[in-house]
Amino acid sequence: MGSPDDQASLFPNEPEHNGLQAPALWLVEPGPESDVVVSSRMRLARNIDGFRFKARFADGEGERLEVYLRGVLHEVDPSLTYHSLNDLSNNEREALFERHLVSHEHVVDEQSRGVAFSADGTTSVMVNEEDHLRLQVFAPGFDLQSLEQKINALDDSLAEHVTFAFDERFGFRTSCPTNTGTGLRVSVMLHLPALAFRQPEGKGGSGAERDIVRMHNAAQQLGLTVRGLFGESSRAEGDFFQISNQITLGKNQAKTVEDVSALTEMVVDWERRNREAFQQEHEVQLDDLVWRAWALLTSARKISSTEALGHLSALRLGLHQKIIDKVDVGTIQRLMVTLRPGHLQLREQCDLPADARDEVRARLIRDTLLGSTPPD
Amino acid sequence: MGSPDDQASLFPNEPEHNGLQAPALWLVEPGPESDVVVSSRMRLARNIDGFRFKARFADGEGERLEVYLRGVLHEVDPSLTYHSLNDLSNNEREALFERHLVSHEHVVDEQSRGVAFSADGTTSVMVNEEDHLRLQVFAPGFDLQSLEQKINALDDSLAEHVTFAFDERFGFRTSCPTNTGTGLRVSVMLHLPALAFRQPEGKGGSGAERDIVRMHNAAQQLGLTVRGLFGESSRAEGDFFQISNQITLGKNQAKTVEDVSALTEMVVDWERRNREAFQQEHEVQLDDLVWRAWALLTSARKISSTEALGHLSALRLGLHQKIIDKVDVGTIQRLMVTLRPGHLQLREQCDLPADARDEVRARLIRDTLLGSTPPD
Repeated sequence: MGSPDDQASLFPNEPEHNGLQAPALWLVEPGPESDVVVSSRMRLARNIDGFRFKARFADGEGERLEVYLRGVLHEVDPSLTYHSLNDLSNNEREALFERHLVSHEHVVDEQSRGVAFSADGTTSVMVNEEDHLRLQVFAPGFDLQSLEQKINALDDSLAEHVTFAFDERFGFRTSCPTNTGTGLRVSVMLHLPALAFRQPEGKGGSGAERDIVRMHNAAQQLGLTVRGLFGESSRAEGDFFQISNQITLGKNQAKTVEDVSALTEMVVDWERRNREAFQQEHEVQLDDLVWRAWALLTSARKISSTEALGHLSALRLGLHQKIIDKVDVGTIQRLMVTLRPGHLQLREQCDLPADARDEVRARLIRDTLLGSTPPD
Repeated sequence: MGSPDDQASLFPNEPEHNGLQAPALWLVEPGPESDVVVSSRMRLARNIDGFRFKARFADGEGERLEVYLRGVLHEVDPSLTYHSLNDLSNNEREALFERHLVSHEHVVDEQSRGVAFSADGTTSVMVNEEDHLRLQVFAPGFDLQSLEQKINALDDSLAEHVTFAFDERFGFRTSCPTNTGTGLRVSVMLHLPALAFRQPEGKGGSGAERDIVRMHNAAQQLGLTVRGLFGESSRAEGDFFQISNQITLGKNQAKTVEDVSALTEMVVDWERRNREAFQQEHEVQLDDLVWRAWALLTSARKISSTEALGHLSALRLGLHQKIIDKVDVGTIQRLMVTLRPGHLQLREQCDLPADARDEVRARLIRDTLLGSTPPD
């Protein structure tokens, strides 16, 4: 259950970034519109004909299916590394979740299950999550077009080896009806510090507050949702939001991509306008926010992940508004993953109480940010 | 009402400190026990025989008395500079208050009144405050003995020129009965960050909390009071407290000094013990507090005086606990005066709204702290 050098063994081939391991290529490389759009993601839900849905597996059926699909995945793309989740330590499973390679449900499940992923983290396939297969591709920035090609190619390759459960009338059959049809979920992760910014009490509603209401209204009209970074009920920690489609039935893939794109373009525009307005109208306040964030991140001796994410968000904004240039955006986004408990504990090679994690986190952030500072 | 270079004209001869004007020698020089005791102060209330108490002045009596006493003060000590408060601007009067050279009541009064003070701020005499004369001497650190000699000498010199209102039975007569008798107020300004430190909610009472209760109880038993930095109702901003006597009648000067000394020695001991205990038991938390304080003070682009005083308090503690050595204690204490509105506005040569003061204050603090940093 986890060798002494857990992290290295779990993510052995990932590219270096500023001399340190990069948690996922899509998080540290710049992409289109990456001042606002952190990353794009597509996911397909697929089930295998001749096997029951996971909730109704017969004895041993889950184990048999995992072994079968592991073999198929290796044939389809030998560059994907496969891990059975029951062979990993808690921290390793948590780290996979923190990299968005597996879902929270996949981590806490006890079924035979696993994940195959590419060294750069841009492709992953969960086996025996809610559906038999969950294909997932990531790209830095706003780039749904390349993702569509990539996930369709993977889907097609898999279809050459297995027969998907498919219904002529409804489309792809899935464990949960909300995924039936295309089985497609398209999502875009956005950094919206200006839209999320709240004026101090008693100063009245800002333009940003109106725009964040408009964003939620527009999403609802398009059958889309806006959520926090880790989906479902998660809060928008660090001002990161995720736009994704809810409807998979009666709306084809092209239309789904079109709707997510349309809302994203609108929100990117609103966020940029709000950033500019905020910088023009509250220049000192913005400078203050950014420089305090830098100061605290490079000085704190203990820091919670919520506090750190808030300051990293301010720093990311400061970079794009050209207020600070002491760090690059890739370093910020790498930290947003490596400061989380699973990664911290893998790095320290032991479980730590929250207090001790706050200390280790502060040291990691300090070392990373000051280590990445170009000499004056 | 205030020349263009107000500050220079009001405090023309004060010594330089780190290349900047020092606000008061007793605030920037080290003294005995100055890890805990910032300064000691003695004040004598005196009234002149043959003049009514201020509240009952006849028409023109206040003006006549001010002219008379101004002349007397010049004869007694020509090195004292005299200012009629009605000749000064609001900001100049406020700056005198911020240096503890005059009381708040003296600032807001409209009576003919003034103050004579020495260039180093260690001696001042208010004319027509509550009493006709209020003699005041300051020393850095814990040094009541030298103050006693100094104020007695000043008192004696004055008595050679004027006749004090005196009652054989009660002692020196004062406007308010609480000062009758010796007319003496002895006070000690203490920096008590460890005693004032509050554990986060739900962690239970700390030893420090018990000691701060003991301090108030002991003060009460000795007829002493413990208050914030600017006396009376002021909160203990920046963890600065002032111990002083309440009783002036039926308690002679020696006994008053003895009681204030005894309580001060106890409190100094408690504070030191709490600092050591805190550093041993919560080393990381203390480091975190100090380094965050330094980071925010040298990075903020706007800062309120309350926030700044809190961080300067942490920095002062960090200096004495040898956590940080980027600044000297004199610079911290000078900032505690110069960051206040009167000084800020004198420096900027204009009145500023609170928002603008927060910006000017942040710049002053940054420049002062970074300018005083020894090169690495």
